[in-house]
Amino acid sequence: MNGRKLYLDHAATTPVLDEVVAEMEPYLKERFHNPSAGYENAYEVKDALERAREKVAQLINANSEEIVFNSGGTEGNNSAIVGLALANIEKGRHIVITRAEHHSVFNAARFLQNFFDFVINFVPIDNEGFVDPADIEKAINEETTVVSTIHSNYEVGSIQPIDEISKIAHEKGVLFHTDAVASAGQIDIDVKRLDVDALTFSAHTLYGPKGTGALYLKENVDFVPLIYGGIQEEGRRGGTENLPGIVGFGKACELAKRDMDTRIEYYKRLRNMMVEGIGGLDINVRLTGTYNFAKRLPNHASFVVEGVHGEAVVEMLDSYGIEMNTGSVCVSKAFLSSPILLSMGYNKELAQGSVVFTVGIDNKIEDIEYLLEVLPKTIKGLRAILPE
Amino acid sequence: MNGRKLYLDHAATTPVLDEVVAEMEPYLKERFHNPSAGYENAYEVKDALERAREKVAQLINANSEEIVFNSGGTEGNNSAIVGLALANIEKGRHIVITRAEHHSVFNAARFLQNFFDFVINFVPIDNEGFVDPADIEKAINEETTVVSTIHSNYEVGSIQPIDEISKIAHEKGVLFHTDAVASAGQIDIDVKRLDVDALTFSAHTLYGPKGTGALYLKENVDFVPLIYGGIQEEGRRGGTENLPGIVGFGKACELAKRDMDTRIEYYKRLRNMMVEGIGGLDINVRLTGTYNFAKRLPNHASFVVEGVHGEAVVEMLDSYGIEMNTGSVCVSKAFLSSPILLSMGYNKELAQGSVVFTVGIDNKIEDIEYLLEVLPKTIKGLRAILPE
Repeated sequence: MNGRKLYLDHAATTPVLDEVVAEMEPYLKERFHNPSAGYENAYEVKDALERAREKVAQLINANSEEIVFNSGGTEGNNSAIVGLALANIEKGRHIVITRAEHHSVFNAARFLQNFFDFVINFVPIDNEGFVDPADIEKAINEETTVVSTIHSNYEVGSIQPIDEISKIAHEKGVLFHTDAVASAGQIDIDVKRLDVDALTFSAHTLYGPKGTGALYLKENVDFVPLIYGGIQEEGRRGGTENLPGIVGFGKACELAKRDMDTRIEYYKRLRNMMVEGIGGLDINVRLTGTYNFAKRLPNHASFVVEGVHGEAVVEMLDSYGIEMNTGSVCVSKAFLSSPILLSMGYNKELAQGSVVFTVGIDNKIEDIEYLLEVLPKTIKGLRAILPE
Repeated sequence: MNGRKLYLDHAATTPVLDEVVAEMEPYLKERFHNPSAGYENAYEVKDALERAREKVAQLINANSEEIVFNSGGTEGNNSAIVGLALANIEKGRHIVITRAEHHSVFNAARFLQNFFDFVINFVPIDNEGFVDPADIEKAINEETTVVSTIHSNYEVGSIQPIDEISKIAHEKGVLFHTDAVASAGQIDIDVKRLDVDALTFSAHTLYGPKGTGALYLKENVDFVPLIYGGIQEEGRRGGTENLPGIVGFGKACELAKRDMDTRIEYYKRLRNMMVEGIGGLDINVRLTGTYNFAKRLPNHASFVVEGVHGEAVVEMLDSYGIEMNTGSVCVSKAFLSSPILLSMGYNKELAQGSVVFTVGIDNKIEDIEYLLEVLPKTIKGLRAILPE
């Protein structure tokens, strides 16, 4: 891992654990064979693929045949939204998503709108970032085939009432997908308890490698693939399998499941230090998302800094050796105001001051002490150079 | 690389070069940052991404901004076929592909047929696996928007007259895509000379890692993305970039370009040994594809074995320590007869006897000598156990 800097941006991507890299290496080197080939070495690679599938499935309490490997969370969200909607296009062309979704969900929905004349209903979120299940119920009509709600949001950490929303969708005969990229590996996810039809998650946000993810597809759910090829993934996603990535993902899921409780306890300790510490600094920096920590990602603390651009905080803290984020993770340069904070009712100026700290297992108690020491002078320094 | 076995299946996937793995490792370890983030370490990762893009572009004589990274050849083919067709859907709903295409092209075309009422025209191939450009011309009509022709076929090695076909397409005002997964890195590819609008290639068939590929998209060509996310790849392909894979791809392309001439000379020597050697064995094993080696992949030799299943040859040679392939690489278990050989006019029985040997830079002269020693007893042994 990175020794030079203090990394507090685990929602953007995590370091890859040494055990994960070690698991990948044979598949980058001597075990390079194509699992579709007909010789013994290929069968062994195919077995490794299926063992990884089992581990990935176990993290979310799925059956292994319900796991479709893909290139990551963005592909997962696109294939879920498009694949479930197109499989049910005879029933209707209406889907329901929320204002808390990732851009991959927004833009996949827009693809359905542009090329298939779908109507998209955007369900609002409250000032803590939560969706009201009653609003989902109201948004569903006779034409609705899919509801998609993010499990937890990257920027404000609020965990949605997924089980309640999936229950409502199913009562109305509508399929339900959740984007669990920010949640999987950080908190317990159980697809049977949540009763979801599809769930997206990714390796690189749970100490696995970039370029690998999975879509959980409940047994027998109707689905149209987005990427066609041969018979890989039971015809649900074509292409020669990314074995190094997939076995790394499997190992990362195994470790996440094994260490879940200890990780969560540790995250909470660091997170509470941040929230209490920053709250006590008297620098007009306010928590975004919820203070109800049972409904918040345990590794997540986010704030708005009045009168200061989030981008400026990122740059200044970087000069102190602290890496963190602002706004929506994947589009930090495309917007000046945070879209999610605007949806939560923040005004445009305040929504420019979004800052996000997400801790990981590589952080230390002293890291947070250092952050609390550096943050006040950073904020005061930035305010001092602002025009009156 | 694999020490235990003699690997002659480089069209299915190649070993990853040690220099490529070495290039990837920092990005699996300390350089794990998300290139979209706003701090210095992320900018350095972003720089590495752009340096890799430059190297990948140079392999095919493209400009770096014309390279869109993705998860591999199957995604590339899907996004090219669907993306070019949908971008031009106002003009018409007709595309032209050939009988020599990979399944990802066939099935992406079928997606357009099923969900957008496209009409697909399949251009035939001759008994050496070649497309006649005049047949492409005849297949194009007023509604045609895209022609796609494989650069060279995996199973029979025949290189199509891409420059002639792209010229015809452009004279008719039609966009042209080529699937160059089997060709890129093996022979010189120059997108400017070929004058293609889109070209698919992949890392894992040119000594790079699995899970990474690229779509060349000519500057200003109209294109609709298949996978939507943030602003990555200039909005043409969303998702956090697979940095280890991409820098490995870059290194593999750099080495392929640097060593192209020596590799080709060496491939030809091994290939000629195989073709002449097997032809001289008097075991009724006939070359498929073409004897005109200027129009054939230099590392490629393929045959039909009369009266014997290709699958049986694969298994038996594996027991002698030789790894090779039969039929179409990705679907070897889904068909008993090779679809491409059927399209070339072989009868069903003969098309079951497809065997494919593809050499690589890890092979030695003695490897081919060993193959020529083992093959006759393998074939005779299999024929001996066949029912009369």
